[in-house]
Amino acid sequence: MRILNHEIPSAVGQTVTVAGWVHRRRRLAAVSFLVLRDRSGLAQVVLKGAQEQLDELSEETVVQVTGTVAANPQAPGGAELVDPLIVPLTEPARTPPIELWRPTVGAGLPVVLDNAPVALRHPAVRAGWEVAAAALHGFRSTLDGLDFTEIQTPKIVGTATESGANVFALDYFGGPAYLAQSPQFYKQTMVGVFERVYEVGPVFRAEPHDTVRHLAEYVSLDAEFGFIGDHRDVLAMLRDVLAGMLAAVGSRAGTALERLGVELPEIPVDVPVLHFSEALKLAGADPSEPDLSPADERAIGEWALREHGSAFVAVEGYPMVKRPFYTHPQPSDPTWSNSFDLLFRGVELVTGGQRLHRYSDYVAALEARGESAEAPAYSSYLQAFQHGMPPHGGFAIGLERFVARLTGAENVREVTLFPRDLHRLTP
Amino acid sequence: MRILNHEIPSAVGQTVTVAGWVHRRRRLAAVSFLVLRDRSGLAQVVLKGAQEQLDELSEETVVQVTGTVAANPQAPGGAELVDPLIVPLTEPARTPPIELWRPTVGAGLPVVLDNAPVALRHPAVRAGWEVAAAALHGFRSTLDGLDFTEIQTPKIVGTATESGANVFALDYFGGPAYLAQSPQFYKQTMVGVFERVYEVGPVFRAEPHDTVRHLAEYVSLDAEFGFIGDHRDVLAMLRDVLAGMLAAVGSRAGTALERLGVELPEIPVDVPVLHFSEALKLAGADPSEPDLSPADERAIGEWALREHGSAFVAVEGYPMVKRPFYTHPQPSDPTWSNSFDLLFRGVELVTGGQRLHRYSDYVAALEARGESAEAPAYSSYLQAFQHGMPPHGGFAIGLERFVARLTGAENVREVTLFPRDLHRLTP
Repeated sequence: MRILNHEIPSAVGQTVTVAGWVHRRRRLAAVSFLVLRDRSGLAQVVLKGAQEQLDELSEETVVQVTGTVAANPQAPGGAELVDPLIVPLTEPARTPPIELWRPTVGAGLPVVLDNAPVALRHPAVRAGWEVAAAALHGFRSTLDGLDFTEIQTPKIVGTATESGANVFALDYFGGPAYLAQSPQFYKQTMVGVFERVYEVGPVFRAEPHDTVRHLAEYVSLDAEFGFIGDHRDVLAMLRDVLAGMLAAVGSRAGTALERLGVELPEIPVDVPVLHFSEALKLAGADPSEPDLSPADERAIGEWALREHGSAFVAVEGYPMVKRPFYTHPQPSDPTWSNSFDLLFRGVELVTGGQRLHRYSDYVAALEARGESAEAPAYSSYLQAFQHGMPPHGGFAIGLERFVARLTGAENVREVTLFPRDLHRLTP
Repeated sequence: MRILNHEIPSAVGQTVTVAGWVHRRRRLAAVSFLVLRDRSGLAQVVLKGAQEQLDELSEETVVQVTGTVAANPQAPGGAELVDPLIVPLTEPARTPPIELWRPTVGAGLPVVLDNAPVALRHPAVRAGWEVAAAALHGFRSTLDGLDFTEIQTPKIVGTATESGANVFALDYFGGPAYLAQSPQFYKQTMVGVFERVYEVGPVFRAEPHDTVRHLAEYVSLDAEFGFIGDHRDVLAMLRDVLAGMLAAVGSRAGTALERLGVELPEIPVDVPVLHFSEALKLAGADPSEPDLSPADERAIGEWALREHGSAFVAVEGYPMVKRPFYTHPQPSDPTWSNSFDLLFRGVELVTGGQRLHRYSDYVAALEARGESAEAPAYSSYLQAFQHGMPPHGGFAIGLERFVARLTGAENVREVTLFPRDLHRLTP
């Protein structure tokens, strides 16, 4: 019966069996050490006689080790295995393309990504995804607790979701189809069925630019819910979801955070909110600007930290001209919208807001943009509104961007298992 | 402050506000009823004066209702709202394409699917997805509890995953790419990193056939884990996962099960297992057959129910010639494989098994099929095996097929939110 490495310290004096990868061998004159890695961490195995077996046990070879647990304050966890019987479970492994046993990754990002199947075994590379997996858990468990229903909607769609740009086209049984850029239309539609829905799944953007923030395929955490007053209810929900995600990262990925040297931010119960026009002023930008520049976002992030001690700040009221047609205008002045961006450490992390919910408003909004509510692209979507939809709104969080900002990764590719971009389709 | 319909009975004597969709109006001589639907169920609202307001409140119009809760044994839950103030939140809704208030769906499947955005509001249609959402929760929570790590792997891939057939091709920045038919290669690779992984996500099959069991896009529940003895360990894990899924469906989708008239099956702790050669014999089939026919599967399902009282039965040892190259052969006779199908009520539900784990075995298996381990399609996948992989295995459950079998739906499309097939790309 196999035990995990992290259980070794509580088995002092017993004979146990562990299994994992040869992480590192160290030979001294009279004694040698084999460091074994499994999913729970590292363990030290001490060889006294028959050290020649180590020659066969190259790094990454998978072995099973039966031995006696002895206390040793110098060993990881304060215990080690002595008098081991080591049985290889595979042929000797080839030398890895990067040295997995070194505390830091001694290779550049392209090498790591090209060799992802093996590079991800490095505890410091793996840690990024451990944070991501914990964040996914936090997202779902928070929304499950708030009576949301999980949905899974199609990724092959008949028309480009929100715009014709940056969409991947495919051959669908001889006809044209596209990869969904977001589940926006479906999640809104499903508010008519379940009131509160979320979806975790891939979205696809044919991004022609090579930046540290964009991927051609990423994981979108989408939520949408009905019977709201306005976008402030959406922001309050987003705040609770992010708090749940941060809490899950703290409780489920503590070792990863430690390895990455990351301290989790607190998210205030009331996230500071600036109106878009105030944000421009605060950043010293031209008041006629329709969008915030990266420098503006940084200035606003600094303001929130300075004035409110918050790493998070919301900017609401973005100009309607810069928002999609389904955005709900600000009732007091329809130049502005009931939508927001949430900035985290001075960078946009989440976009959300209130949507239109009356069919007649959709007709008008589309006509104002020179489109028709009769267009086939909108017929199923707008059917939901013809048959009664409540005031609603929602948001979408990009998983990779969230994890990158949280861990301080400069490039989202560092925290993506197998990134896809303009230049990368493998592994 | 809105309360939900199902909270009404515990508020007798109080003034409350509820909100939802006008599910049905009923006019009698002196009194009228409005049945309100929200995500928790139905509520009855009683109108005495001013019944003309009902004319404006067509079915599916979204309203907010403030009224006093009165006990009434005839009302749903034993209470109803009287003296209501009804405020419409949208314009009057158009008449739905199917009558949502009738207890059974009075339309055929094509009409339901064409009008899915609204048809899914019917409690009997919605119930199918409620079962699916609960099953997803059960899958993840069971594996989370067993120390599995969730992964999200790319759906755009450079080569067809397992075979060139039935794959969707797309234009990837001017070059060819494909939609992943399964996360098989990635999940195996990730066993080298996390030992135990699962993924819930879309998979894509360009199925040229129009059947009640196949979709062009479906949700695959994949698990893979290392340090197994053989495929029997995989089957035992699958059994626990299915038990967890069934338990979650029971506890989280009880109302849906009731509405669908579904009684949950029990899954025995030890699922009955037949070797493929025994299965052929039992079904009275030719012993040289390389596969089980649907009739064979039904016969085996009946046998399991009769002899073991089990709706589930596993068939192990399928001929190697019918299994993918990564399948581990049966050590005692390599004609057979260490793989299995799990049949549920006489139909294949899950395929699983032990995989090869030695690099040299992959080289030999590919060569035996006239392929090369040096082919670019395999290079990243096989890199994991060059650098040490433990004995491992896994399985994949098709969500829609699982829910269809469980609920007795004849067609998987009945329990899919927005199915995709040879003829259907919308809604």
